[in-house]
Amino acid sequence: MKIIVDAFGGDNAPLEIIRGCADAVKGLGVDIVLTGREQEIRRVAQENGISLERMEICDAPDVITMEDSAGDIMKAKSDCSMALGLRLLAQGKGDAFVSGGNSGALVVGATLIVKRIKGVRRIAFAPIMPKNKGCFMLIDSGANVDCKPEMLQQFGIMGSIYMEKVMGIKRPRVALANIGVEDHKGGELQHSSFALLKNSGLNFVGNIEARDIPDNAGDVIVADGFTGNVILKLYEGVALMLMGKLKDIFTHSVKNKLAAAVVLGDIKALKQNFDYNEYGGAPLMGCSKPVFKTHGSAKAKTVYNALRLTKAYVEGNVVDEIASSIARYGADEK
Amino acid sequence: MKIIVDAFGGDNAPLEIIRGCADAVKGLGVDIVLTGREQEIRRVAQENGISLERMEICDAPDVITMEDSAGDIMKAKSDCSMALGLRLLAQGKGDAFVSGGNSGALVVGATLIVKRIKGVRRIAFAPIMPKNKGCFMLIDSGANVDCKPEMLQQFGIMGSIYMEKVMGIKRPRVALANIGVEDHKGGELQHSSFALLKNSGLNFVGNIEARDIPDNAGDVIVADGFTGNVILKLYEGVALMLMGKLKDIFTHSVKNKLAAAVVLGDIKALKQNFDYNEYGGAPLMGCSKPVFKTHGSAKAKTVYNALRLTKAYVEGNVVDEIASSIARYGADEK
Repeated sequence: MKIIVDAFGGDNAPLEIIRGCADAVKGLGVDIVLTGREQEIRRVAQENGISLERMEICDAPDVITMEDSAGDIMKAKSDCSMALGLRLLAQGKGDAFVSGGNSGALVVGATLIVKRIKGVRRIAFAPIMPKNKGCFMLIDSGANVDCKPEMLQQFGIMGSIYMEKVMGIKRPRVALANIGVEDHKGGELQHSSFALLKNSGLNFVGNIEARDIPDNAGDVIVADGFTGNVILKLYEGVALMLMGKLKDIFTHSVKNKLAAAVVLGDIKALKQNFDYNEYGGAPLMGCSKPVFKTHGSAKAKTVYNALRLTKAYVEGNVVDEIASSIARYGADEK
Repeated sequence: MKIIVDAFGGDNAPLEIIRGCADAVKGLGVDIVLTGREQEIRRVAQENGISLERMEICDAPDVITMEDSAGDIMKAKSDCSMALGLRLLAQGKGDAFVSGGNSGALVVGATLIVKRIKGVRRIAFAPIMPKNKGCFMLIDSGANVDCKPEMLQQFGIMGSIYMEKVMGIKRPRVALANIGVEDHKGGELQHSSFALLKNSGLNFVGNIEARDIPDNAGDVIVADGFTGNVILKLYEGVALMLMGKLKDIFTHSVKNKLAAAVVLGDIKALKQNFDYNEYGGAPLMGCSKPVFKTHGSAKAKTVYNALRLTKAYVEGNVVDEIASSIARYGADEK
C-alpha cells in the first residue's frame, strides 16, 4: 500500500511528519509518497537521522497555511504540497492521502480534485472523538454549514460504514444530535433527517441530547456542520478548561503537589484519553478515494496513528462500501 | 417586594421550596406568595418546623409535570400551581414569579399569560452558566428552535441589560456563538444577526467559537435556541463525564484514595463552581414582568439563590430597561 502524505501540513512540519512516516514504514509496512519542498525534506531527514527508505518525494514549492482561504488551493496555492498530494491521489499514484494542513482547503481540494463518490452530495469532515468509553465519530463537524436532510442521511450511512470497517464496531449506533430524545424534537432539518435516517437500514437509535454525547449515546453522531462544529469545539473547550482548573488545584499548595504526584500517572492517562492526538484525526467522508486529516499540531506519534487508521480506511474498502450503500439508499432522493 | 413562588415546581417540591422561601423571607426581606395545594404546604411546613410568616398561600389543586406537554398549561393543566402563579403575576398580585417546574410550560405560560414586553418578538430562556472565571448568560438556550436575526439582536440587548443590572457586569461583552471568529463566518442567520448586533449600541465583541465559551469569551453568548440548547447540555455533559472519570481515579486504589483526601475540599469547590444550582437558574427574558426558572432539582439553597437573583431582577428595573432599549433599537426592524 502506498500512502501519500503532505510533508508540509501542520505546525510541526516537516520534521514530525517525516518521523511519523518513517515509523509507519517500519511499523505498518506501508510505502510513502511525501509532497513538499524536496530539498528541505532531505535536509531535515539527514539532520535528524531519519531514514527515507521506501519514501518517494514529490517536490511542491508552496505551502497552504491556516491564513490562506480554503479556495486558494485551486488558485494562488495550486502548487502547494496539499494540492499536489490530492492530484497524485486522483491520478492513482497512491491509495490514500494524509494531511495536517488547512482543513477547509483540504475539503475544497478533495471535492474538486479527488471528487466525490457518485451520489454523495457533500464531503463531510468527521473527527473521531473520545467519550466515556472508547470513541465516536462526529459527522459533519464543519465542512457543511447549511445542510439538507439527504445530506444528514448520507452522513449517517458513511459514518456507520467507517466505524464498522475501520474502528471495528459492529452495527454502530447512529444518533441524530438534537435538543431532546422524542421523535418530533428539533427543527425542520431534524424532523426530515430523522425520517430518512430511520429508513436507511442503519442501527439508528434516534435523537440524542448533547448532554449524552460524552456518555456513550452513540457511535456515530450525525449533525449539520454548524451544530457539529459547535459540539467539536465546545467538547474541547470544556475539557481544556476543567483540566486547567485541575492543574490549578494540584499546584496551589505543597500538600496538593504531593497528592498530585500520587495520581499523576492516572491524570495523565485521563488527559491522554481526551487528547484528540491519540485518535489521529478525522477522515473526510464521501471522497472517491481515502483522504484523512490529521491534527495541525500532530507530532510523529499522531502522524503514525493517522497512517494506521488510513491503512485501515483503505483495507476496509470503505469507499466501495459507501458507494454501494449510497446507490442503494440514496437513489430515490436525487 | 412580593415574589410569587410555585411551591410544586421541581423534584423536591414542596419541602425544599418552602424552606428556601422561609430563608429568603429572613435573609432577603421579601414577602412570598406560594401557589399549590394549600393543605399539603401547611402540613409539610408544620412537620418540618418551617415558619410561614410573611407567606401567603394561593391554593392550586393541580401540578404540571415534566411529562405534560408545554401547551397543557393553557388547557388540561390550567389549574396548576404554575399557571396560577403566572396569572397572579399578570394581575399584579406580586412583583415576580419563580418556578422550578416544566421549562417549556413556563415559556408558553409566560408568553400567553404574562405576555411579552411590547416589541419583543420571543421570550428567551437564558441560563446563567459557570465559566473559567465567573459566569455568563446563554441566550436563547432552547425556547426558540427557529430564530430570525431580529430575535438574536433582541437576545443580545436583553442579555446585556440583565448581566449589567442583575449580575453587576459593566458593559457586558456580547458575543455571537459561531463556528469561527471572522465576521463572515456561519450561515445566513449568523451573517444577518452579526450586522444587527453590531448596530445595537451593545459592547458586541463579534463572533466566538464554542471552544472559547468556557474560557471567558463573553458575558452574554447569543445563539438560536437549537444551538444554545446544544451548548447548554454538552457543557453539562462533558463536565459530568470528566468529573466521573476523576472520581474513578480517586477511588481505584488505596494510595489514590489517600491523595484524594488531601485535595477533596478543592475538588468539591471546583465541582460546586460548575454546579448550576449555585447560580440559581435561568431568567426568562422578554416577559412584561420578571419570571425566573430555578432548577428542577433545586434544594432550599438554590431556591434562595433564585429568589435573591429575582429580587435583583425586579430592583434593577430590567423589564423597563429592556422595554426602552427594544423601542430604541428594534423600531425599524418590525
